[in-house]
Amino acid sequence: MLRLVGTRLARKWWRQLWAQPLAKPACRLPYYRALPRAKYSSQKDPEPGSFVRSTFNGQLVPDHVFPFPSVLTAEQTQFLQALVDPCARFFQEVNDPAKNEKLEGIEEATLAGLKAMGAFGLQVPEELGGVGLTNTQYARVVEVVGVHDLGVGISLGAHQSIGFKGILLFGTRSQKEKYLPKLASGETVAAFCLTEPSSGSDAASIRTVAEPSACGNFYTLNGGKIWISNGGTAEIFTVFAKTPVKERTGEVTEKISAFIVERAFGGVTSGPPEKKMGIKCSNTAEVHFDNVKVPAENLLGELGKGFKVAMNILNNGRFGMASALAGTMRGVIVKAAEHAAARTQFGSKISRYGAIQEKIAHMAMLHYVTESMAYVLSANMDMRVPDYKLEAAISKIFASEAAWHVADECIQVLGGMGYMQETGVEKVMRDLRIFRIFEGTNDILRLFVALAGIEYAGDQLKRLQKNLLKPAGKVGAILQEIGLRAKRKVGISTGSSLQGIVHPDLDGSADLVTKAVDLLGEAVESLLLKYGTKVVDKQFHLKRIADAAIDIYAMAVVLSRATRSLSLGQPTAEHEKLLCQTWCHEAFERVRGNLQAAKSPPWTQSFTNKELISDAVVQNGGVLASHPLSF
Amino acid sequence: MLRLVGTRLARKWWRQLWAQPLAKPACRLPYYRALPRAKYSSQKDPEPGSFVRSTFNGQLVPDHVFPFPSVLTAEQTQFLQALVDPCARFFQEVNDPAKNEKLEGIEEATLAGLKAMGAFGLQVPEELGGVGLTNTQYARVVEVVGVHDLGVGISLGAHQSIGFKGILLFGTRSQKEKYLPKLASGETVAAFCLTEPSSGSDAASIRTVAEPSACGNFYTLNGGKIWISNGGTAEIFTVFAKTPVKERTGEVTEKISAFIVERAFGGVTSGPPEKKMGIKCSNTAEVHFDNVKVPAENLLGELGKGFKVAMNILNNGRFGMASALAGTMRGVIVKAAEHAAARTQFGSKISRYGAIQEKIAHMAMLHYVTESMAYVLSANMDMRVPDYKLEAAISKIFASEAAWHVADECIQVLGGMGYMQETGVEKVMRDLRIFRIFEGTNDILRLFVALAGIEYAGDQLKRLQKNLLKPAGKVGAILQEIGLRAKRKVGISTGSSLQGIVHPDLDGSADLVTKAVDLLGEAVESLLLKYGTKVVDKQFHLKRIADAAIDIYAMAVVLSRATRSLSLGQPTAEHEKLLCQTWCHEAFERVRGNLQAAKSPPWTQSFTNKELISDAVVQNGGVLASHPLSF
Repeated sequence: MLRLVGTRLARKWWRQLWAQPLAKPACRLPYYRALPRAKYSSQKDPEPGSFVRSTFNGQLVPDHVFPFPSVLTAEQTQFLQALVDPCARFFQEVNDPAKNEKLEGIEEATLAGLKAMGAFGLQVPEELGGVGLTNTQYARVVEVVGVHDLGVGISLGAHQSIGFKGILLFGTRSQKEKYLPKLASGETVAAFCLTEPSSGSDAASIRTVAEPSACGNFYTLNGGKIWISNGGTAEIFTVFAKTPVKERTGEVTEKISAFIVERAFGGVTSGPPEKKMGIKCSNTAEVHFDNVKVPAENLLGELGKGFKVAMNILNNGRFGMASALAGTMRGVIVKAAEHAAARTQFGSKISRYGAIQEKIAHMAMLHYVTESMAYVLSANMDMRVPDYKLEAAISKIFASEAAWHVADECIQVLGGMGYMQETGVEKVMRDLRIFRIFEGTNDILRLFVALAGIEYAGDQLKRLQKNLLKPAGKVGAILQEIGLRAKRKVGISTGSSLQGIVHPDLDGSADLVTKAVDLLGEAVESLLLKYGTKVVDKQFHLKRIADAAIDIYAMAVVLSRATRSLSLGQPTAEHEKLLCQTWCHEAFERVRGNLQAAKSPPWTQSFTNKELISDAVVQNGGVLASHPLSF
Repeated sequence: MLRLVGTRLARKWWRQLWAQPLAKPACRLPYYRALPRAKYSSQKDPEPGSFVRSTFNGQLVPDHVFPFPSVLTAEQTQFLQALVDPCARFFQEVNDPAKNEKLEGIEEATLAGLKAMGAFGLQVPEELGGVGLTNTQYARVVEVVGVHDLGVGISLGAHQSIGFKGILLFGTRSQKEKYLPKLASGETVAAFCLTEPSSGSDAASIRTVAEPSACGNFYTLNGGKIWISNGGTAEIFTVFAKTPVKERTGEVTEKISAFIVERAFGGVTSGPPEKKMGIKCSNTAEVHFDNVKVPAENLLGELGKGFKVAMNILNNGRFGMASALAGTMRGVIVKAAEHAAARTQFGSKISRYGAIQEKIAHMAMLHYVTESMAYVLSANMDMRVPDYKLEAAISKIFASEAAWHVADECIQVLGGMGYMQETGVEKVMRDLRIFRIFEGTNDILRLFVALAGIEYAGDQLKRLQKNLLKPAGKVGAILQEIGLRAKRKVGISTGSSLQGIVHPDLDGSADLVTKAVDLLGEAVESLLLKYGTKVVDKQFHLKRIADAAIDIYAMAVVLSRATRSLSLGQPTAEHEKLLCQTWCHEAFERVRGNLQAAKSPPWTQSFTNKELISDAVVQNGGVLASHPLSF
């Protein structure tokens, strides 16, 4: 394994490594400073670490993905089953998505049924009036909602997945006891108030302020929030505001704190419902706070730690989105499959034509990946895996784009019929468009994935440098790591492997993951060496690095799931093998293309060109090439 | 040039060529039989031929693309300018897209204004009451409409681009004189009636019948058409129906004929307006014909030649779609550029971030290509280029997908704002979704492009075989062609080149076109050799061949346009150079990937897998992988 160390090639690479300053990405990244920082730098590397994070260092750490996690006890499964069936029937028989959409609200009978079912407090502990579901159980229930009505899903999700999630995660005992019972029953509705007109992705720049009273008994809240789901209907708000915080140095700085705010406090007003492209039955409105007196005991979490509260809520809420959208895809694919089976053109069912087959196969693969990601994530959370931020971000990105693609292709399979409201797919598509934007746009989340991963890889490189300067007692580990890096540099597999972990039928696909991880590690290292700390500004490169990481994680989760099916001899195992193999083949080709683009000079030139093109268009306020007819 | 002939490699290739039956693709293709056939087989190759068609044979025939065609006289330009400015003002000041959408119709005042402007008869000759525009002039006017309101665009397009286009193209003098004046003034509205419940893409399978009367004076029309734009508002219909036609052999067969049908004939009824995803102000309805007596003189074109009439109308109408959508993109890009320039996040304008820059640059490139395609096509039509079917199909595919992508990315740039109705982009997106479906779905058009191109290449191969059997007098030409093929086979450029035709600054991009054409020719030949006539069923491969052809044509049109700008020293020439170079770089990478996929065994395996996956999903009526939680 170490035979390359000491060769001319390895020495050359080694000089190159030392010739460059190593990255400290977090220090000056505009996007990144506002995002929760991965905290590996000064700590001992926790074992086992995040799968995705490790891939940036060219390492395969399969522990949380393989074997496919299974966390429910028999009792929990039974309880869940007893919940899922009536829930599905309720959505089939009672809920009417088209009617809700027309109403721009949820029908009264549906609302009452949802409350009776406990749908407003699925994860609230039973002793506080909720259903007390685990994350995996919750994921399965919202999957049912996702099949039928995303508008209802958003109303429920805005309430419990983010609206009062802060109370669940950070609330004191008395806060929980005061608020959760009524929230769980649906007697009161909650909303999450972070976004402001000037603060979207840059959540840290909010202007809403909470001024502490001289007596220390309350805060006076002033400011305005926009695009708040349930903003017009909620009574309880999780609100983020700037507060003065005294540092240890005695200096007072403005930091974000979180508060539980009741509409009943007075001074809380809402704007009219926004007119949106979709999820029309879900209320979206501005919320204004005008000298609202918030009792000091309604501070949520620590003073000045509100940003962490916000990010944890969002991070914690993402798993539900993935499973809900897996449900949406499942429903949409039924429509495409039924149409393809029924429709005859040119003398054959259209399901016989490759152009249709490719679409349906792709839809099925996207669904398989999304569903796998959703349940690996919820299981990891239930297993109390300490670090799942990157996996959660990837699941949100992947699910929202996969569902969008599936709905779009379903419309194409249905042809003219797909464009008609009666088929219901165009509504799904309109509903879906917001998922790529809200709760962290996919663009920001891609940067987060790339930068958190690169930071980890940079820290590992730095640690290596440090140990090399003081190598006492660590010679073996250092030599091993140098060997891995040298191997990767010259295109030899580093030996990280899933052989023996995946089912033997999938060894070929598993090799692609190994190769892809090698390529990612090598690309990250080469970017770090080339750009040093400036890598944080290389968003064209970062996007491709993120896309590669997403594809690699997607390959891993389906390998894990298909392995389980094959090992258990499940009836659909051979079908899942095909899904997995086909996905891995295509995903690997994308990884190779993306990482090539992240490194090659023609692509770097292309990125520079695009900067120039964009600058010119923005400066001109639109396209500026002279018209072919000159006017 | 011929040095490879006679080498071992060339001999091996030559044996391979002869060992396989050559393709006769048209004979048993289900999709293709219904599409207009390219007629090159038995004819002398017309010179110069279609650019796109020739690329399938690995040849660059630049004549109709280079130099960038300019067909308007000074007088025509002046006339057009005098039309465009007031038209743009009208759409800014009078037309209200949101109001039209809410009305599900066009406001009265707007309709009256459009009629007064001549917008209902833009290409009808002046002596028949129209504006008498050339194709290029028409393209420029509908571009203005596309910027502002696609719903209005569809209403006007359904009327004149397809509704009465048949009368313009195939009508007798008396048909023209009878119908065109009132249609041109907007006093009567036209609709194009082809699609039926069981006949969408497979237009040849219509069931509507027109039975000739014994006296020969009229036809009795019975049948139903669906999704007819203007179906509920039109008085004049171009209707396609099966008619008995006596062949020369005396046998009577059912063939399609076209008819001009007036609502006033009686027996014509329309269904209620369809509820659609977008283009809501445009009426879409079923139209039923119940024992409608159509005078024999209302036969449009020859008896039994209705399919040709239909395909010619659609083919002829596509150029307007491309320019209208270029307009739509132009409008959307303004919104993205303005937002990117105004919005600050993380302390900088978002236009400074690579993630945004890449989107805006891509939008600008897509617009540049679409606009270039639109005006090359309209000019080619004005120049009476005999064969522009493939270029028209590509322009429709490209424009509809580019505009969709641009609108989608604009929403992403705008973030939450993009999802709100008030910004107007979500409406554009909903309007756009139908363009990838109607007037030939993009999937069918891709097959058409691939198969018409492959048929041409197959015919060229067959001609070569034939000449080799009887080589008298053609030795030089044969040897030359063998030399080209042998060169291509071993990866040496065939010497087709755009050097000297494009501006020297673009030589690098031009080389990519040459390489791409070589690769396409080689891939097509290899598919023909591998699959013979069965290539017609290889839709997975055909899609990739079509995508490569589309990218190559896109590269060519922007090279031509940027060359003109550079040569004329236009102020935006350097910007256009960047657009062109960046586009060509990325397009070439896609071409390489697609053609690789069309040939390599792992991809062939992937296609087989997808067939199996799709079959299983269709048979199961939805996804069938067992759920991660098993229920």
